[in-house]
Amino acid sequence: MIHQSEKKAVVLLSGGIDSATTLAVAKSQGYRVLAVSFNYGQRHLLELDAAAKTARDLEAENHIVIHVDLKKIGGSALTGSMDIPKHDRVDDIENSDDIPVTYVPARNTIFLSYGLALAEVHCCEAIFIGVTAVDYSGYPDCRMEYITAFEKMAQLATRAGVSDKIHLKIKTPLIHLSKGEIIQKGVSLGVNYALTLSCYDPDPKGRSCGRCDSCLHRRKGFAQAKVADPTIYIE
Amino acid sequence: MIHQSEKKAVVLLSGGIDSATTLAVAKSQGYRVLAVSFNYGQRHLLELDAAAKTARDLEAENHIVIHVDLKKIGGSALTGSMDIPKHDRVDDIENSDDIPVTYVPARNTIFLSYGLALAEVHCCEAIFIGVTAVDYSGYPDCRMEYITAFEKMAQLATRAGVSDKIHLKIKTPLIHLSKGEIIQKGVSLGVNYALTLSCYDPDPKGRSCGRCDSCLHRRKGFAQAKVADPTIYIE
Repeated sequence: MIHQSEKKAVVLLSGGIDSATTLAVAKSQGYRVLAVSFNYGQRHLLELDAAAKTARDLEAENHIVIHVDLKKIGGSALTGSMDIPKHDRVDDIENSDDIPVTYVPARNTIFLSYGLALAEVHCCEAIFIGVTAVDYSGYPDCRMEYITAFEKMAQLATRAGVSDKIHLKIKTPLIHLSKGEIIQKGVSLGVNYALTLSCYDPDPKGRSCGRCDSCLHRRKGFAQAKVADPTIYIE
Repeated sequence: MIHQSEKKAVVLLSGGIDSATTLAVAKSQGYRVLAVSFNYGQRHLLELDAAAKTARDLEAENHIVIHVDLKKIGGSALTGSMDIPKHDRVDDIENSDDIPVTYVPARNTIFLSYGLALAEVHCCEAIFIGVTAVDYSGYPDCRMEYITAFEKMAQLATRAGVSDKIHLKIKTPLIHLSKGEIIQKGVSLGVNYALTLSCYDPDPKGRSCGRCDSCLHRRKGFAQAKVADPTIYIE
């Protein structure tokens, strides 16, 4: 039974550091959590295992995996046949204004739209998403003005938008945090980062490549946070 | 080869009257059309056949069918186990302020989000959607204020939203038309409505029930338009 008086939130959970921390923040704010992950034909399906372990460890009430057909859309190294770029130094990704080839067109919009549908059906008053405008890798759909516009649209999109019963909020607790600050916050909330996976190109055993954009951000984040990095890197 | 200088649009195509007419309008405005339909576990999968026939007949350049996992979300008679309501008179649906049980939570938001992804990858400058605020069956995501909010969000969501290269438009050519006016417009543009399917609950041969909300709107529309209705109804 779902009662509308209980404080519930949808949390978008990818299996990485940011969304795990976001789930911990939602729990710390007293929300019952419906975690949702997306199987979108990403090369790194291992991240769905990481999401499931994290959802369990952080006591989400439910964890739903939704299949999203992004391969038919194409246009990204994460879902297509392009190579994942590798780097020797983190500066290589930080001194570029380009949007990287790992950008998946409209991904956050599609994910948040499913989140919106779940929020409506399960009477949730918030959707949490772990975007950050600091280390956001140049993705357009990680900016605050985008999130604000999505929230406004979402408030008009549903039954609640007609009846004015619920003002759905899109919550971005990490938006102003660096990767180091995110990790510090997560550690303080009991997140076990050994369960998470950031790598765009892990080996079949789940070991991280150590050299993709996402691995570089992860490594730098643990160094910044002065927290031991539990990740097993190939190099 | 896709050239950005060519005028292209995504058209959301369901297989019914409104989206077929919308496709015809897009073509009449000089757009090359990428039609997209959604397989969302709807009971009336026959509408996807209708969409394919309509796309071919109206010379869309491509027709993509995307599988959308709405069953995991639930909350609607169209995707779940609820009964499709039947009526004896069209007044039954017109004198109600309630949002009907056939409403699918956040459906247009999810569909437009996929449309947005396709528009970005294929360099389209518009997404056409056949919503109408006149006979809109009480769905919140068929209102103009919702569409405007989605457009604003969409313009911030993509690479183009960062580079300011393309101002994506959400086009709703039917929004102020009644069903009768839509059919008159479609007939003038050469739409073959015999290829379309409106019924929420057709029999296995594709014959329309004649008594669901959607059949009632269709029947009334042909009567209003003073156009012979090519539909085969069971009753």
